[in-house]
Amino acid sequence: MNFYELAQPGVRGLTPYQPGKPIEELERELGLSNILKLASNENPLGPSPEGLAAAQAALAGVELYPDGSGFALKAALSAKLGVAAEQITLGNGSSEVLEFAARVFVAAEHEVVFSQHSFALYPIFTQIIGAKAVVTPAAQWGHDLDAMRRAITPRTRLIFIANPNNPTGTWVGGAALESFIRDLPPQVMVVVDEAYFEYASHAGMGAADYPNTLAWVNRYPNLIVARTFSKCYGLAGLRVGYAVSHPDVADLMNRLRPPFNVGSVALAAATAALGDEAHLQRTLSTNADGMRQLTAAFNERGLAYIPSVGNFICVDVDQPAGPLYDALLRKGVIVRPVANYGLPNHLRVTVGTAEQNAVFLRVLDEVLAA
Amino acid sequence: MNFYELAQPGVRGLTPYQPGKPIEELERELGLSNILKLASNENPLGPSPEGLAAAQAALAGVELYPDGSGFALKAALSAKLGVAAEQITLGNGSSEVLEFAARVFVAAEHEVVFSQHSFALYPIFTQIIGAKAVVTPAAQWGHDLDAMRRAITPRTRLIFIANPNNPTGTWVGGAALESFIRDLPPQVMVVVDEAYFEYASHAGMGAADYPNTLAWVNRYPNLIVARTFSKCYGLAGLRVGYAVSHPDVADLMNRLRPPFNVGSVALAAATAALGDEAHLQRTLSTNADGMRQLTAAFNERGLAYIPSVGNFICVDVDQPAGPLYDALLRKGVIVRPVANYGLPNHLRVTVGTAEQNAVFLRVLDEVLAA
Repeated sequence: MNFYELAQPGVRGLTPYQPGKPIEELERELGLSNILKLASNENPLGPSPEGLAAAQAALAGVELYPDGSGFALKAALSAKLGVAAEQITLGNGSSEVLEFAARVFVAAEHEVVFSQHSFALYPIFTQIIGAKAVVTPAAQWGHDLDAMRRAITPRTRLIFIANPNNPTGTWVGGAALESFIRDLPPQVMVVVDEAYFEYASHAGMGAADYPNTLAWVNRYPNLIVARTFSKCYGLAGLRVGYAVSHPDVADLMNRLRPPFNVGSVALAAATAALGDEAHLQRTLSTNADGMRQLTAAFNERGLAYIPSVGNFICVDVDQPAGPLYDALLRKGVIVRPVANYGLPNHLRVTVGTAEQNAVFLRVLDEVLAA
Repeated sequence: MNFYELAQPGVRGLTPYQPGKPIEELERELGLSNILKLASNENPLGPSPEGLAAAQAALAGVELYPDGSGFALKAALSAKLGVAAEQITLGNGSSEVLEFAARVFVAAEHEVVFSQHSFALYPIFTQIIGAKAVVTPAAQWGHDLDAMRRAITPRTRLIFIANPNNPTGTWVGGAALESFIRDLPPQVMVVVDEAYFEYASHAGMGAADYPNTLAWVNRYPNLIVARTFSKCYGLAGLRVGYAVSHPDVADLMNRLRPPFNVGSVALAAATAALGDEAHLQRTLSTNADGMRQLTAAFNERGLAYIPSVGNFICVDVDQPAGPLYDALLRKGVIVRPVANYGLPNHLRVTVGTAEQNAVFLRVLDEVLAA
């Protein structure tokens, strides 16, 4: 039996899974220790200390199933964000809520619209369903909302907008985004993927027109806002994200949601981290400082970059970036090549601490001079 | 806009999500403390101490994304089970790998076969896809493999067999199960759901003909075996399960698998727990002893029960079980009503420690006498 013929066409069309190597394996193979990883936009300050303490405490009951309703986390989100618990869908990372949105609203005969240079999971979730991906050209590496509006057809059911965008760090301003959402046909859902919301909102990043879309959820019922605990809260290893939406949309996504999709340690850590304002502010100011450090250094070196309001930046190395990525790796610095995002001459670098950024810049100089 | 009309029919047909209450909320409402929960087949001895220590250590790096390949856990499973890493699919609990199997191989025009009184997620995964659920009558509360064989049509693509079955604890013997699998048409996949494998395999449970189906995976390429760390390893809160299958089947399931579906703390805990033979043996002998304690007590009281090789048992209370469930709850003991499984006069009780079982029996006597 050929199992590929038995598989659903959408699944069959996915890229075969390539097992990766954990850092420890890479270190062993390369004979390195203490690799600096600036590849996955993780928090260089580590997890929220309050989140970490709650995780440690929650390990005491780890033989028990999680609270499938996420009661405490939803109550904390509800209080902090000013939304009803009935508007929240919890995910095993925010990527899971993105997939819930696609699986609820999109069938094989539909179209999903997203931008060039946008997040890698949007085409994958579209492909799994067997729906048609409609990729609109970027403007200045970011979302061209006019092009996206023109791409809508009667078959369109879902639009993904990453704001700020990953991997480019670009953002769309509040007026343009609200106008775009206001004009959508009623059968078109829009997911605004705000994995980097807190960074972009920080005054130090200078994106004064970056919107707080949560304020719009009650106005535009086809709006789904997705956020995560993996970035500024430093909990990527525990897998917690959420969506805020119209209660009916949340009801539908929660029907699809497996009851124990978020673990008990993750729920406890996220609930506590949400209240850890001190760690959040340290994280955001460290990031704003680090962004200034990196852009100043790129300017000094005459390296172009894509202006970013995330905790990462794409630098244009003015040559195919793959060999440079390899050279950096051999010297113990992992960044992210983004050729698969249509950016063959860029490298995406996570903003680290001042010391980590300095190490990256020194090693970058070495490999550019070699 | 009516979002229910926009939703996919399979999702729309799912039961609306009912937020539950965590135990702490229940205790507050009932004015109780120290509720005894024998409802979810969790390990009364707690997590594997080695798993717990590894989880604590892994919290140090919780700001980092998990190893998406699950390299270390797959290596440990490979070594312990004698299968190749390429045959393994890791899940956010074993329930996720059950859903992967359905989503890879089943479309809306197909049929999924499973037994009456079997696990609640099989009809849900079938419903999400919009496929037809074919429920075969049970024999002695367990799987009637002849009835299941007769239920296969040209539209059948997947069969779920829980062995032992949840909630009844019944099992099918190796000879009958292998004969069933051998005779399957080549396009029919079978998932043998072995969430309670280790309990049923234990000599103290007396199921001498309970099979080790992993030995069959290389013989029958349409066989998928699913197991979990949520039961005997005591890690239900961390969400780790796995499937072992033909490498092509694993490739297809891994294409669908989100890359970070299992968290880093979960991966570390499961890897360590797998080697904690002492905790496993304590768990299994505690369970065998507890099962003898409960069945002896039921026999003394003239209460019928379904013979079980799991870590739970369904006792026939010879009256509608709902009010008894409520009465037990008000006295601080949570068990599981199973009317939704077609067993309105039974309660499913998790086997606890000797002390916990004694508390349950004392409270059961009180409510039966009331």
